[in-house]
Amino acid sequence: MIRPAPVPAVLADGRTIHFYDDEQRHRPVPPDRRVLPPAGPPSELRWDATTEEWVIMAPHRAARAGGAGPGCALCPTTGGAATEVPAASYDVAVFENRYPALRGPGGPAPGAVPGPHAGAPAGGRCEVVSFSCAHDTSLARLPLRRMTTVVEAWADRTRRLNGLPGVEQVVCFENRGAELGATQAHPHGQIYAYPFVPARFGRMWEAAGRARGQGRPCPFCEVLAAEERAGERVVLRTPHWTAFVPYAARWPYEVHVYARRHTADLSGLGPEERADLACTYREVLRRFEHVEEAPLPYLALWCQAPAREGREAAHLHARIFSDRSRATGVKRLGAGELGAGAFVSEARPEEAAERLRAAAPAEES
Amino acid sequence: MIRPAPVPAVLADGRTIHFYDDEQRHRPVPPDRRVLPPAGPPSELRWDATTEEWVIMAPHRAARAGGAGPGCALCPTTGGAATEVPAASYDVAVFENRYPALRGPGGPAPGAVPGPHAGAPAGGRCEVVSFSCAHDTSLARLPLRRMTTVVEAWADRTRRLNGLPGVEQVVCFENRGAELGATQAHPHGQIYAYPFVPARFGRMWEAAGRARGQGRPCPFCEVLAAEERAGERVVLRTPHWTAFVPYAARWPYEVHVYARRHTADLSGLGPEERADLACTYREVLRRFEHVEEAPLPYLALWCQAPAREGREAAHLHARIFSDRSRATGVKRLGAGELGAGAFVSEARPEEAAERLRAAAPAEES
Repeated sequence: MIRPAPVPAVLADGRTIHFYDDEQRHRPVPPDRRVLPPAGPPSELRWDATTEEWVIMAPHRAARAGGAGPGCALCPTTGGAATEVPAASYDVAVFENRYPALRGPGGPAPGAVPGPHAGAPAGGRCEVVSFSCAHDTSLARLPLRRMTTVVEAWADRTRRLNGLPGVEQVVCFENRGAELGATQAHPHGQIYAYPFVPARFGRMWEAAGRARGQGRPCPFCEVLAAEERAGERVVLRTPHWTAFVPYAARWPYEVHVYARRHTADLSGLGPEERADLACTYREVLRRFEHVEEAPLPYLALWCQAPAREGREAAHLHARIFSDRSRATGVKRLGAGELGAGAFVSEARPEEAAERLRAAAPAEES
Repeated sequence: MIRPAPVPAVLADGRTIHFYDDEQRHRPVPPDRRVLPPAGPPSELRWDATTEEWVIMAPHRAARAGGAGPGCALCPTTGGAATEVPAASYDVAVFENRYPALRGPGGPAPGAVPGPHAGAPAGGRCEVVSFSCAHDTSLARLPLRRMTTVVEAWADRTRRLNGLPGVEQVVCFENRGAELGATQAHPHGQIYAYPFVPARFGRMWEAAGRARGQGRPCPFCEVLAAEERAGERVVLRTPHWTAFVPYAARWPYEVHVYARRHTADLSGLGPEERADLACTYREVLRRFEHVEEAPLPYLALWCQAPAREGREAAHLHARIFSDRSRATGVKRLGAGELGAGAFVSEARPEEAAERLRAAAPAEES
């Protein structure tokens, strides 16, 4: 059971904000008294007929401020400074991005392969998930109760966004660390509800669907079983989840967190599975903070079933990876990776797993 | 006609080196008198069953020196310092990489989709192409005669590497600029002969092959025709080549250079097409050096037909792109791009084309 989210509040320019609390507290949300300009022009989808992929053209995003002025936009609103969150304190806040790459209804027409120079409205939704009203912390360092609230917020938003017309794929993710381009230091993630299935996800779900159609086992279940049999790349294992460095890891540190039960997305998890996930996921992030001298910057994302077609073939898992380690330095993507699509990894997955297993920080709440 | 390459010379550890000269000069190549340790262990291919892609595991490459000691490895050998090129001067030198990601015979067995944790030898070949014996220059700044020699070297290496057993795809590329991870400042490119078709290339050639099989036109020919009709993104046009910012460009600056004739790879070009290409390609690189205050770092690669299957569907073109512009800042790839596979661009392709058209530097030889 997911606790019902509170009725959303509305920001000054009409965007919605949801608060997810650690305990049910019924805090009233003060009105957002800012005067905000209306949203900029919408983005546009353009079809790349050579790779058969949609590209989101969002030139209005180049205008957004890096740190959005002197104050942090995700800190609570105080007497002196109104921020994106019109509350004096909060646990987890989810609100629509002020500079969204995707917005509103519309998207590609389903069906036929588009021709060259086909375009479509860039409908969908981009949300910001603030993990805490405290600025100087990280998801890894938050109490377990808070991590559970974050999991519940992800699950609830996934369910709701999957139900929006035109949405084809919901992706919850976190870009952590200025080194990896995060424009806000405040601990936060994002959720994109795409009006198409992004290319890499599409290929994963197609491969899984093909296996299913041919009566073969789910490739994700097979990978999970193979990793558990091999053992040497498993980082940690809890009743419902297994975290491992994949056999064919592309990045210096890369951990995949698999649901051991074949299930489509976060919204289908039971309370025990969610609580266990909070524990497992936070522990992986803590390893990323402690495995090297300084916390590793990382990218993390949830691979969940698409909103409509082929949901039963998808297998819920998270991917968390960093572009650097002491052993390899920073992995730069060159023409081989970005142009041809072949990754060269300079890390040994087994060694990375060994180091992550050994990097258990002191126990916290 | 491609002038015959000289007989290759051999470096101290057995690697081969080829010299391509602007004029036929028959310079003798002095012996390489260095004492070099034998090559490190070979790399390994590992199959990612979730994305159905091969990943090249090359941990021995993490040991390579960034700048390889005090001297530049690509400068000519002088009395005091022996480098990778055992000659007092040269025009274009192509030699096997000392820390190759791919080497020797072997590769995936053709046919069936591998299972989880399938591996294969990382056969193939990695070559370095030094564009000049001068350290402080760039491909864009070399004389046209030299750019023609580089085109001839690419064409000759493509033809020869395509003929090696086990090679499935040859990719000539250049990672230019320390900002993009180039470990050598000396003007140079690389050639990878892969024992599999890299994923992104595979999807391009498959889409083209599917169109061909269904009696539809080549998607690349269609894109080229659509860009020429639209005109607004064309940067320059010569008798045999068209350079344009693609309609669905992913990067702040991105130019594709298409052969107007549907042709498979560089080795099939006639002398006029090659000379015209040298002129066009160098001019695009010159625009990348002059369009902003400082020369743009860039990645460039040739999209050529695979070595064996489906050659007739492929359409030769180069892709040159930079991750930055004054208008957009540096484009960082986040979880959306690297995890899900959906690019968000903050640049307007039409504006980038306009700026590149206007950035014509003074005429050189």
